[in-house]
Amino acid sequence: MTRSVKGSTVTAVESEIRTLAELDDTELARLDAWWRANNYLTIGQIYLQGNPLLREPLSTEHIKPRLLGHWGTSPGLSLIYAHVSRLIRHTGQQAIYLAGPGHGGPALVAAGYLEGTYSEIYPDVSQDEAGMLRLFRQFSSPGGIPSHVSVTTPGSIHEGGELGYVLVHAFGAVMDNPDLLAIAVVGDGEAETGPLEGSWKGVSFLNPERDGAVLPILHLNDAKISGPTVLGRKDPEEVRHLLRGHGYDVIEVEGSDLPGMHHRFAAALAAAWTRIRDIQTAARDGSWDGTRPTWPLIVLRSPKGWTGPDTVDGTPVTGTWRSHQVPLSGVKDNPEHLALLERWLRSYRPEELFDSTGAPVALIRDQAPDGDLRMSASPHANGGLLTRDLDLPDFRSYAIEVPRPAQQRAESTRKLGEMIRDIYTRNADRFRLFCPDETNSNRLGSVFDVSDRAFMERVTPEDVAIGRDGRVMEVLSEHNCHGWLEGYNLTGRHGMFATYEAFAMVSASQTVQHGKWLQEAKHLPWRAKVPSLNVLLTSTAWRNDHNGFSHQGPGLIQVVLTQRGDVARVYLPPDANTLLSVADHCFRSRSYINLIVIDKQPQLQYLSMDEAIEHCARGAGIWEWAGTDDGTSDPDIVLACAGDVVTMETVAAAQILRERLPGLKVRVVNVVNLMTLVRPKDHPHGMSETLFTELFTDDVDVIFSFHGYPGAIHQLVHGRPDADRFRVRGFIEQGTTTTPFDMTVRNKASRYHLVMDAINNAKRLPRGAADLKAWCRSQLDRHETYVVEHLEDMPEVRDWALGDWAARG
Amino acid sequence: MTRSVKGSTVTAVESEIRTLAELDDTELARLDAWWRANNYLTIGQIYLQGNPLLREPLSTEHIKPRLLGHWGTSPGLSLIYAHVSRLIRHTGQQAIYLAGPGHGGPALVAAGYLEGTYSEIYPDVSQDEAGMLRLFRQFSSPGGIPSHVSVTTPGSIHEGGELGYVLVHAFGAVMDNPDLLAIAVVGDGEAETGPLEGSWKGVSFLNPERDGAVLPILHLNDAKISGPTVLGRKDPEEVRHLLRGHGYDVIEVEGSDLPGMHHRFAAALAAAWTRIRDIQTAARDGSWDGTRPTWPLIVLRSPKGWTGPDTVDGTPVTGTWRSHQVPLSGVKDNPEHLALLERWLRSYRPEELFDSTGAPVALIRDQAPDGDLRMSASPHANGGLLTRDLDLPDFRSYAIEVPRPAQQRAESTRKLGEMIRDIYTRNADRFRLFCPDETNSNRLGSVFDVSDRAFMERVTPEDVAIGRDGRVMEVLSEHNCHGWLEGYNLTGRHGMFATYEAFAMVSASQTVQHGKWLQEAKHLPWRAKVPSLNVLLTSTAWRNDHNGFSHQGPGLIQVVLTQRGDVARVYLPPDANTLLSVADHCFRSRSYINLIVIDKQPQLQYLSMDEAIEHCARGAGIWEWAGTDDGTSDPDIVLACAGDVVTMETVAAAQILRERLPGLKVRVVNVVNLMTLVRPKDHPHGMSETLFTELFTDDVDVIFSFHGYPGAIHQLVHGRPDADRFRVRGFIEQGTTTTPFDMTVRNKASRYHLVMDAINNAKRLPRGAADLKAWCRSQLDRHETYVVEHLEDMPEVRDWALGDWAARG
Repeated sequence: MTRSVKGSTVTAVESEIRTLAELDDTELARLDAWWRANNYLTIGQIYLQGNPLLREPLSTEHIKPRLLGHWGTSPGLSLIYAHVSRLIRHTGQQAIYLAGPGHGGPALVAAGYLEGTYSEIYPDVSQDEAGMLRLFRQFSSPGGIPSHVSVTTPGSIHEGGELGYVLVHAFGAVMDNPDLLAIAVVGDGEAETGPLEGSWKGVSFLNPERDGAVLPILHLNDAKISGPTVLGRKDPEEVRHLLRGHGYDVIEVEGSDLPGMHHRFAAALAAAWTRIRDIQTAARDGSWDGTRPTWPLIVLRSPKGWTGPDTVDGTPVTGTWRSHQVPLSGVKDNPEHLALLERWLRSYRPEELFDSTGAPVALIRDQAPDGDLRMSASPHANGGLLTRDLDLPDFRSYAIEVPRPAQQRAESTRKLGEMIRDIYTRNADRFRLFCPDETNSNRLGSVFDVSDRAFMERVTPEDVAIGRDGRVMEVLSEHNCHGWLEGYNLTGRHGMFATYEAFAMVSASQTVQHGKWLQEAKHLPWRAKVPSLNVLLTSTAWRNDHNGFSHQGPGLIQVVLTQRGDVARVYLPPDANTLLSVADHCFRSRSYINLIVIDKQPQLQYLSMDEAIEHCARGAGIWEWAGTDDGTSDPDIVLACAGDVVTMETVAAAQILRERLPGLKVRVVNVVNLMTLVRPKDHPHGMSETLFTELFTDDVDVIFSFHGYPGAIHQLVHGRPDADRFRVRGFIEQGTTTTPFDMTVRNKASRYHLVMDAINNAKRLPRGAADLKAWCRSQLDRHETYVVEHLEDMPEVRDWALGDWAARG
Repeated sequence: MTRSVKGSTVTAVESEIRTLAELDDTELARLDAWWRANNYLTIGQIYLQGNPLLREPLSTEHIKPRLLGHWGTSPGLSLIYAHVSRLIRHTGQQAIYLAGPGHGGPALVAAGYLEGTYSEIYPDVSQDEAGMLRLFRQFSSPGGIPSHVSVTTPGSIHEGGELGYVLVHAFGAVMDNPDLLAIAVVGDGEAETGPLEGSWKGVSFLNPERDGAVLPILHLNDAKISGPTVLGRKDPEEVRHLLRGHGYDVIEVEGSDLPGMHHRFAAALAAAWTRIRDIQTAARDGSWDGTRPTWPLIVLRSPKGWTGPDTVDGTPVTGTWRSHQVPLSGVKDNPEHLALLERWLRSYRPEELFDSTGAPVALIRDQAPDGDLRMSASPHANGGLLTRDLDLPDFRSYAIEVPRPAQQRAESTRKLGEMIRDIYTRNADRFRLFCPDETNSNRLGSVFDVSDRAFMERVTPEDVAIGRDGRVMEVLSEHNCHGWLEGYNLTGRHGMFATYEAFAMVSASQTVQHGKWLQEAKHLPWRAKVPSLNVLLTSTAWRNDHNGFSHQGPGLIQVVLTQRGDVARVYLPPDANTLLSVADHCFRSRSYINLIVIDKQPQLQYLSMDEAIEHCARGAGIWEWAGTDDGTSDPDIVLACAGDVVTMETVAAAQILRERLPGLKVRVVNVVNLMTLVRPKDHPHGMSETLFTELFTDDVDVIFSFHGYPGAIHQLVHGRPDADRFRVRGFIEQGTTTTPFDMTVRNKASRYHLVMDAINNAKRLPRGAADLKAWCRSQLDRHETYVVEHLEDMPEVRDWALGDWAARG
């Protein structure tokens, strides 16, 4: 009976599946040879700089001067790899391999090398003796590759650096990817991290009909770098309960006996795969009852450093934390250790594994699946190859009519929500929104017109926009949302992560690490560009009026600014039309981190769609209608702004000056693309010095009102002409439960502060300036009186404090 | 039989315990009255600005103009609070209450008010009608308090803003606190976060003999703000498995029937407490077998918005997500809703709960434990009250002899490790080191001479420095380490979190939120200062030679710089003696975030202990021995530095200039306290402009070599005289697997770059400058050739690349 999985290329027959579970001698020999070869190459990478095939007796000059690398986890990783490759050969299953214990880098590099992929993308590292030597030497060496799985490792979408994200990456990879199986190996060290523990629940959001499958393999070998792990040492019964509680059907394999472990692991993997196939088949042929499947999970308990030296100098090594990194140290100076290393290497019988040229023998080559089915060559792990552009609606069609600037208010993100709704409709196989619990609250709820939120646990009649078929991803975990989107992006699909500004810091390290991945990938010609990671920050510091200080923090901008210019993008659209234009640009872009910051509350609208498009294309521009600058000569002062609330205050300050000090020449500059401020040598968006001077002059003081921490602007304009003249107002960590307008007052960024700043720093002052300053001071005094003493006047405080200058002006 | 718990003040007798489990009518009446009163006050905070006691019919003018707050979780939080208070009254148990569902703020505020604590610390919010009105009006209002549990809430050590940390705070609070019980309520929304899921395992590190106990209460009410939760909707059998798998003995209470729920919750709490008491008694009287106890945990399933309106406009509300925030909206404009609100409020029978003055009646007052046993008044939740200074050894006794600067190398953190060892010995009840898996690797291993690492799971003969009695905390989770230390600090004890520099970003949001807590606390006179949060970053960007780019990121400095000057401290000691002096200062300080950055590898030593003390006291100073500045007039160039590796490069650059361009007057300035660079108005450590000018002159160019991202220095010196003249070298996100010296080359921060920078920017150039520039260029060319092409020369590359200028100079 041929599998009838809809849209799948899998063609395994039942008899194959039975064969899968039972290894015959030929298959066993092939598997074991491949495993021995991979272990040999792993040890070679850690130790050898010569004599790679052990064609001569091992001597000290063959040993690297500095021994680096992680042996402990590697044999287990290789065993799993070998068995999954066999599964692929039998079933045609498309699979990728994510190595949570990322420091097993040499094992994964070796696997790509044995499969031929490594030599295809790095021809110098050829499948012969010279190439093998290069493979060994490059490992953990200057100019070479890191000791962990990294961007340079073919077949990887998962850096083995910061631990905790292997499952989120795996789940993101298989969403809307029905034919893909993601093998996610979780190390027992990584299993202690919060993000990992919070990611088992991916199954509660995975639809077996439309999504692919994740097969987690919890690889328990008992130890971390210098001590035990919690799961490694817990009563196995507790571990079983835990995983069953997470929703899995636990299959266990334990031991170190050979070939017994091969037989048992083959049976376990066959059982797991069959269970996945059954779940998917039922979901796709209509026989599924709709309840969340209990997906399989394998717990593999094998000794740390398995097949390594049992004892060194009389001390147990294999099976203990001592084999975590380099089990035999001081090999260059200790003849006994050198002899032990040689015995250890020869125990894999390299002469059987590599031919006279140094190439893997046929037995080993035959173990690899064909072409793109090799996990190291899977296009899913080089997702740019599979990326199709989004079918985007015309963003202009969501435009808000803005006949005159700063007259009406709108919830800008609501327009983006409408655009996202239509992107969902047009791209049902390649776009998702990820949001921790706030899609509606962030005013993006229009998307629910066309898609529910995914949820595979019990649904009740009172649930709204919740269901199995939902493709909007909501889970109260920034780590899950961010990581799922990364996995989705890296396998070639598009999306957006929308979250509270302050709590974007929860996943800041993921933003950093994904940025590093993208930066590294740009140096590798074989890595095709992937969709950008789009991050929308709403519910911002300035409008968190009832939540207070813990909800007020624009720190992620600062974090993104630390990244290189070839990936970091920060946009602060002040209104709906600029937001739409920016979003359209971001959805089309590749391999960037696009950070978009805009609040969800009703806000003034400034630009018509045509104006918005032009403004966004430039990234920054003079708003002549807001100022009194006639453009013929330098103004007396420049009021610049970036961010929605601060733009409103700046425009209001300019209006006060226009009305009350008309002789002052005020120029208003709005910055929507923050990176235009940087010098062109530091960022490709950096505006030329000519343009910079056209906007900001050479020497007129600039009062820059910024959404985030002022230090961001200080660092961005550093090196620009007379940067000292930039006086920055922004969020200076003055927050509390208060009105939006009071937030601007507390942070010395209110319209009145800006007017006073302008007067204090203008090149030339018309008569009346002192009076205006006094008036501003009195306005602020009045405000403080209201806020502190007159809570009974709340409605008035609120109307006034909302700072609706347009209504009053 | 009286309890014989060592060191405990608990005096419950067995008959009391039986009484605990069974509520008589008097107790039931008291509990229920208190609960009704607390619910009433919760709703009052959300809705009322007048008529607080409903002495007249409710009308629209009594309703707040804007309805904010979270009702849904509150009744459950209040029920738990009431029952724990009763437990305390019966047993004398010291307990604190941590509300994971932090948006149940009004419930916790109400509890403090009913217990009298609120009025004690905020006399305006008195226990009478006027005070109650103030209580209502301040909630979620300008000038008032946030809608979530916050620093202003008496009895809290846990901000209900960013979710995920309730268990880490609870576990940290009870470490070395044998008499304390931390009640940690976990909401089912919070339970979805990674940090929370990663924190159940605290029991694997809790010693029942020396530590107190955490009683987690998983409060499942099924929904978040607009949808269901995973644990709320999972098969209860799975939830049971999950929690059993985490190591708990699960006690379940479910329903909405009254008084049934009171009886059942009382029995559950009595069972949990008895189990805790039995575990502790056994551990403390010697009858414990040493295996990890199975601690109790309560799962409480109660309807969301329990006791609220069942339906509104025909739509179910109570028991659904619709009751998450404000179940009745539009009350001002909708007479039916107004009537419903009035009926709802009157259903609690306020006239029975408050006397004619508005004070709680005796029945309710009697429900509260006495004095400091009230959870809202616990000194453990205002830990500064309990803080005792550390008994610190003389840090000078760990000094490294430095007869001449920059001649010898040492692992500086190893000296700190010796100091920490002795701090452990002297402060066995109030100091802990928290580290994700790297204490030894970070060269702090001397502490293992006097303490093992805590571990309550199975220990094997191969384990070293692992055991039940250990007090060094290692778990592969930055979230756990950081959060435990926060809980430990906030209850008045001292410690240090030591971690990889790059992965400090994992817990960056915790650093931010704890900083916000400390900032807020400074405004509250009743909050006593607590020990500072000390964070040591090692394994830094510049020395992660085999790990590569994902391990290279000095981003946490940037994050700490966003915090206010009254909490943020950043130190970059360049060597061992400065590190010891800085650490001593940090261990003595209160209520700061102290960030200390120094690498663990062998590094040059510069200052004798006396010099180090003076240098650290100033925070920045001229190193005359390194430069050629005679101090009589301005130098031609200033070479400044902050950070260990960049200091070495700066000193090396100065040596090259001294030897090869002796006519150039070079001043070397080292900065150990980064905040001295800031203007005094922005940070209390900021040096005066006079001192700044003494170090950096007014107008000589400064080549500033910085450990972190250059933008940090740009923002710090902004506003200083002619800040444009600061040319900053630092980590510009150029990382890979390479030698340490190559890292400085890639980031344009090597000694040769600094020499060229100096020549390019010096005020005055002696003859020979052009030749020296050419020589520098050739040195760099030679280096690139080595790194890129001559891997076979690895030993030489390494020796040269390590940049051991002193050995060659």
